[in-house]
Amino acid sequence: MADVADTRVVVAGATGYAGALAAELVWRHPRFELAAATSRSEVGMTLRELYPRYRCPVELTELELGLLEDVDAAIVCYPHGAAAPVVAEMRGMGLTVVDLSADFRLVDAAIYERWYAPHGEPELLENAVYGLTELDRDRIRTAELVANPGCYPTAALLALAPLAERGLVRSAVIDAKSGVSGAGRGAGEQGALVNLTENLIPYAVDGHRHLPEIEQELERISGDAVDVTFVPHLVPIDQGLLASCYVELAEPLEAIEQLYGERFDGEPFVEVVAVPPGVRDVRDTNLCRIHATTAGEGRALVFAAIDNLWKGAAGQAIQNLNLMLGLPETEGVT
Amino acid sequence: MADVADTRVVVAGATGYAGALAAELVWRHPRFELAAATSRSEVGMTLRELYPRYRCPVELTELELGLLEDVDAAIVCYPHGAAAPVVAEMRGMGLTVVDLSADFRLVDAAIYERWYAPHGEPELLENAVYGLTELDRDRIRTAELVANPGCYPTAALLALAPLAERGLVRSAVIDAKSGVSGAGRGAGEQGALVNLTENLIPYAVDGHRHLPEIEQELERISGDAVDVTFVPHLVPIDQGLLASCYVELAEPLEAIEQLYGERFDGEPFVEVVAVPPGVRDVRDTNLCRIHATTAGEGRALVFAAIDNLWKGAAGQAIQNLNLMLGLPETEGVT
Amino acid sequence: MADVADTRVVVAGATGYAGALAAELVWRHPRFELAAATSRSEVGMTLRELYPRYRCPVELTELELGLLEDVDAAIVCYPHGAAAPVVAEMRGMGLTVVDLSADFRLVDAAIYERWYAPHGEPELLENAVYGLTELDRDRIRTAELVANPGCYPTAALLALAPLAERGLVRSAVIDAKSGVSGAGRGAGEQGALVNLTENLIPYAVDGHRHLPEIEQELERISGDAVDVTFVPHLVPIDQGLLASCYVELAEPLEAIEQLYGERFDGEPFVEVVAVPPGVRDVRDTNLCRIHATTAGEGRALVFAAIDNLWKGAAGQAIQNLNLMLGLPETEGVT
Amino acid sequence: MADVADTRVVVAGATGYAGALAAELVWRHPRFELAAATSRSEVGMTLRELYPRYRCPVELTELELGLLEDVDAAIVCYPHGAAAPVVAEMRGMGLTVVDLSADFRLVDAAIYERWYAPHGEPELLENAVYGLTELDRDRIRTAELVANPGCYPTAALLALAPLAERGLVRSAVIDAKSGVSGAGRGAGEQGALVNLTENLIPYAVDGHRHLPEIEQELERISGDAVDVTFVPHLVPIDQGLLASCYVELAEPLEAIEQLYGERFDGEPFVEVVAVPPGVRDVRDTNLCRIHATTAGEGRALVFAAIDNLWKGAAGQAIQNLNLMLGLPETEGVT
Repeated sequence: MADVADTRVVVAGATGYAGALAAELVWRHPRFELAAATSRSEVGMTLRELYPRYRCPVELTELELGLLEDVDAAIVCYPHGAAAPVVAEMRGMGLTVVDLSADFRLVDAAIYERWYAPHGEPELLENAVYGLTELDRDRIRTAELVANPGCYPTAALLALAPLAERGLVRSAVIDAKSGVSGAGRGAGEQGALVNLTENLIPYAVDGHRHLPEIEQELERISGDAVDVTFVPHLVPIDQGLLASCYVELAEPLEAIEQLYGERFDGEPFVEVVAVPPGVRDVRDTNLCRIHATTAGEGRALVFAAIDNLWKGAAGQAIQNLNLMLGLPETEGVT
Repeated sequence: MADVADTRVVVAGATGYAGALAAELVWRHPRFELAAATSRSEVGMTLRELYPRYRCPVELTELELGLLEDVDAAIVCYPHGAAAPVVAEMRGMGLTVVDLSADFRLVDAAIYERWYAPHGEPELLENAVYGLTELDRDRIRTAELVANPGCYPTAALLALAPLAERGLVRSAVIDAKSGVSGAGRGAGEQGALVNLTENLIPYAVDGHRHLPEIEQELERISGDAVDVTFVPHLVPIDQGLLASCYVELAEPLEAIEQLYGERFDGEPFVEVVAVPPGVRDVRDTNLCRIHATTAGEGRALVFAAIDNLWKGAAGQAIQNLNLMLGLPETEGVT
Repeated sequence: MADVADTRVVVAGATGYAGALAAELVWRHPRFELAAATSRSEVGMTLRELYPRYRCPVELTELELGLLEDVDAAIVCYPHGAAAPVVAEMRGMGLTVVDLSADFRLVDAAIYERWYAPHGEPELLENAVYGLTELDRDRIRTAELVANPGCYPTAALLALAPLAERGLVRSAVIDAKSGVSGAGRGAGEQGALVNLTENLIPYAVDGHRHLPEIEQELERISGDAVDVTFVPHLVPIDQGLLASCYVELAEPLEAIEQLYGERFDGEPFVEVVAVPPGVRDVRDTNLCRIHATTAGEGRALVFAAIDNLWKGAAGQAIQNLNLMLGLPETEGVT
Repeated sequence: MADVADTRVVVAGATGYAGALAAELVWRHPRFELAAATSRSEVGMTLRELYPRYRCPVELTELELGLLEDVDAAIVCYPHGAAAPVVAEMRGMGLTVVDLSADFRLVDAAIYERWYAPHGEPELLENAVYGLTELDRDRIRTAELVANPGCYPTAALLALAPLAERGLVRSAVIDAKSGVSGAGRGAGEQGALVNLTENLIPYAVDGHRHLPEIEQELERISGDAVDVTFVPHLVPIDQGLLASCYVELAEPLEAIEQLYGERFDGEPFVEVVAVPPGVRDVRDTNLCRIHATTAGEGRALVFAAIDNLWKGAAGQAIQNLNLMLGLPETEGVT
C-alpha cells in the first residue's frame, strides 16, 4: 500500500463544478498530491479564487500532457466527446484514469453515437469499467480506466439494484429531481436564479442521455432488459438529487426493508433509512440514503438521495480512484 | 344575472393561507362584497396587516352565524372535521357554500372515516358536488354545496381526465411536488426555511389523504377502478404544484397532444402547452398548464402545473362560486 | 384625453428583464397598443414564449425606425451608451420617449463620462427630465424625454426626499440590497443560482454607478451637496430591493412619521408604514413602502422597499409615460 | 495537555440549532467525549434522528446535574434567563463552562436588566469573560466561565476591532444581515419559508439586544464610548451573517488593508480578503472573512462574513473551550 501523499493526481478540467470539487478533494486527500488542476478558460487563477468556498490554493494551468510524466493518475472532467482523446493519450502514458464524461460509460459504441456523437476512441471501451462502486467493486479494483457514472444513474441504480439483482423489476418509473449544479457551469439563462427561484420544471421528457446508462446497467445486473421510464426535473436548489423509483414487481415481495438492509450492510456510503430521505441531509457528503417500501403486492417505492456533485460525480470519482490504487475506499471522502 | 357587488360572501377561516387568499379574492371581486372574514386566532387585525402583500383592509372577526342573515354565500376554510358542522348550519340558513376542507369530497363516508375521522354530517354528502370545475361544470352550476378539491387531486385529475374519460388509464403513477404553502400555516418546523432551503423530501409515502379523492374521481370519470400510485414531495418553494403522471395505457394512443388540445379547447384556465410547464409560470394565477406526450406505445407522460393556493384552493373556489351564482366563471380570478 | 387604446407604444429592447416587463405592461394597458416589441437576439419568438409567465403574444421583431411612423411613444430599454443614439433618432421623429438607461439621467455630461463612457448625444441632456415621479411630477408632465431613474436611486431618493427637501440630511449611509434581476439578463455566472443560493454579497464597494444619480438629485432637492455613502448588496431573491438609509440629521427632528405621512399623503404608489417593510410585500407591484424612525436625537433611519423591475424600472416607466401623455398616472400599473 | 478523548463535555440544551451543532462538534472532536446532550422536548431521540444531516448517534436525555460528576466541562445553550441558574450550579460543581446565552455577556447587571429581565446570578458576572476569541485570547485561557458572544457582535466586533483598538471609530453604522437560523428553532411563522422566500426584512429597528454587547466591547477596546447604530435584517438563507460597517473615522487612515492584514496575521479563523466576502463562502466553517476599504478621507467600510451557527455560536464555543482546557484552539473546528 502507498505511503503518505505519494500518488500524484492530475485533475483535467477543474473549472466546472464537478472538476473543481474533484481538485479540492484530491488536494485535501491524505494520500494524494494534486499534481495539476487544468483549465482552458481560467488559467492563472487559483482554485480558491475561482470558488471562494474551496480552500485549494493551487493555480489552474493549461493541460500539457508532456509534463505529466511523473503523474500516476488522472481524473478527467471534460465535456462528452472532448474527453475521449485526452483519456486515450493518458492511458497511452500508463496513467490510471477516472473519466467523468459519458464517453466510456456505454459499452456499445452504437448506442453512444445515437445519444451523443461519433465516438473518438471506441477501442478503449472494452477495458473501461462502469464505476458505480457498490455494484462493481471487484472489477473497479483492477481497472485502469473507470467511467464514472452520471448523477441520475448513480442514484437510480443504487435504488433499483437490490430488486434488479433478483430479477424483480418488471418495469420502473424513475422520477428524478436535481439541483441546478447538475446542469454545469455553462447553464446560462437555464441556471439563472431569476428563472429558477420558486420554480420546478420537468425537462428532457422525450429522452434524457442518462437513460441508456440506466438501461444498460439494469439489464446487466438483472440479466434481462427492463422497461424504464425516466424523467428528470430541475428544482431550485444547488446540490442534491433525488430519484423516486416506482417499480412494478415481477413477483410479490415481503420484507423489502430487510432486503435493502442486507444488500447494503457494511457499505460505507449507502445508508438504508426508515423514513424518506431529504437531499439536504446528504449534502456535501458522498452518502446515498435510500428508503424502500411497498405499495400493495405488486409495487415497490424506492427513494434515493445523493449530492450530485459528490456521490453523483467527484466524490464517487475519488472513491473509485482509491479502489483502483489499492487504498481504503473512504480515504479523503469522509 | 346579478348587479354589481350585490352578492355578500363570508369567508370563514381567513387566517390560513388559502382562506386569506379567498378573502382577498372575494374583496377584489367586482360582483362580490366581503361580508365578513372570520378567524379564531387573529380577531381585530385587518387582513392586510396579517399578510402585508394583500390589500384587503377588512378586519378579521369571529364567526357569528346569527349575524349572517343578509349573507348569500360562504367559502369555508376550516380544518377537516371542523368544517362539517359549520357548513351544515350555513346550509340550513340557505347559504350557497364552497367548502375547502375534505369533509364533503368523498361520497362514501366510510372511506372518509378510514382516512380522516368520524364524519359529523354524513347526510349532506349526497347533495355535495365535487368541484373540479372543468370536469363537472354542469353539476356545479346547480349545486348549493361544492366540495372544493384538494390541491394534488386538482392537478392530477386535470392531467389524467382526457385519458380516463376514454378508459385509457390502466394504471397511473403520480409523482407530485408541492410548495410549502400546501402544508398550511401551522406547519411549524416542517415549514421552516431552515429545514427546507436546499432540500427536497418525499413524504406520506405510505398513503396520502388525497389518494382516495383521486381514486374516486378517476373511477367516476372512467367508469372503472384505476390502479393509482401517488407520492407527494415537498420542494423549497412557496406556491406551486406539479403533478408528473406516468400512465400505463390500456391501448396505444397516437395523437395525445391533439387529444388534450381538443379536450381543453376553450377552457379559460387550462392551457395545453408544447413544452413541460414550470410552476413559476402559473404562480398567482388560476391556470393549470398541461403538457402531454407518449413514451413508446404503451405509456403516456402528462405534466400539470398549478398554483396550489389558486387553482388548487382559493382560486378554484371563486371559479366554482361564480358558476353556482350564475356569474361568468372567470370573474374576479383573472 | 385619449380614447381607448389609441396610443401606439413601441418597446425597444424587450428581451431583458425590464424591457420584457415594460412590453407586458404596455400590452395589458387599457389605453396603449403595443406597436412593436423589439429584440436583437430573440427575433421571431413571442414574448410569452421567451418568458412563459407573461401573457403577451406579440412577436419580437428587429427595431426598424422607418416603420415607426404611426407610433406615438417609445420605452427604450437598451444598455447604457446604446440607448442615446436610438433615443435621439426617436426624438427626431417626434416620439414621446421614456429611456431606462443611464444615458440621460445625469445632467452633467462630464460626470456621465467619468462613470460610463463618452456621451453620444449630450445636446439632448438639457431637455431630459429625471423621472422620479413623486419628486418631479410637474416637469414630467410636460417632458418629451424622461430619463427613468435607476432602481437603487428610486428607493433611496424616495426614502430621503422628505428629509432632504427640508435640508435635514447632513450625511447619509445607504446600505442597499437587491434581487438578482437587477443585474440583468446577461449576468452569467454572477446570476447563477449555484452561486447565489444561501449567499449574500456586497459589491461595487468602491463606487457604484448609481451613486452620482443619488448625489445629483439629493443636491437638487436639498439645495446643497450631501455626503452620501452607498453600498449595494446582492441577495438570493429574484425581484425586490430594499434601501436602508442611515441619516445624520442637520438638526433634531421630532415627528418623523408625521413628516413622512404628510409628504406622501395621497400618493398612489408610496405607502408610509408603521413597521419595516419586506420586499416580498411589494413584489409585482409599483409600490414603494417606507418606514421612517429616529435613533437618538441626531439620526434618522429610513427603509424603502420596491420591486426593482416595477417601481425601479418598467412600472415607473409606465407611470411616467401616463403622465407625459396626460393619462391618469396609475393606468395600467395597478 | 490532555490525552485523546479524555475530556468529558456535556451540551445542555442540544435541541436548538446552536446546541445541536455544539453537540455534533463535541462528538466529532478528537479530544472530547460527549458525556450527554440534553433536551427538554425531545428526550429519547438521537441527535441524528432530530437533525438527519448530523451524524451524532447520542440519545438526547434530560439534564440531571447529579449525574454529571465525572464531567469536566459544559456548553450551555439555554434561553436567556434560563441559563444563569444552570450555569451557577455547574460552576459550583467545578465545571468549566461556556454559556451561549446573553446571561453573562454584559458586565453591568443593570444594562442586562434593561434589555432582558432581572438577572438570577449577578455575582457570577465578575468572573465571566466575554469570549470573542481573537480579541481576548489571554483572558479566555484562564477563564472558567466564558460568555460566548452573540452572532451579530461577533461579526461586528471583528470588523471594527482593528479601528477601535486605535481609537479611530468616531461613529459606526452597522447594517447586519442574517440567515434565519439566527432566530432559533422556535421562530414559528417568522421562520416559515412561505414568509421568507423572496423576502428581505429589517427588524428590531428600534433597538436589538445585541446593541449593548457591541457598545460595551467597543468601549472596552477603544477606551471610550462609541456612537453605534445597529440594524439587523432577515434574509432568505439558513446559515450565514454579514455585518456591513460604515465607520466615521476620528482621523484619516491610509493603509487600511495593511492594518487589517497585520492585525489578523496568523489568526486561524480570520481571513482578510481583497474582495467583499459572500456568506456562502464561510458556511459550515468557523471562519470570519473581512474586507476593509476606505471611502474618501473620513470613512471606512468594513464587511465581515461568518456562519452564525459556527463562528457566531457553536464553533466559537468549541474554540473557546479548547483554549480554556489548554488544547490547540483549532482542534475539532476545522
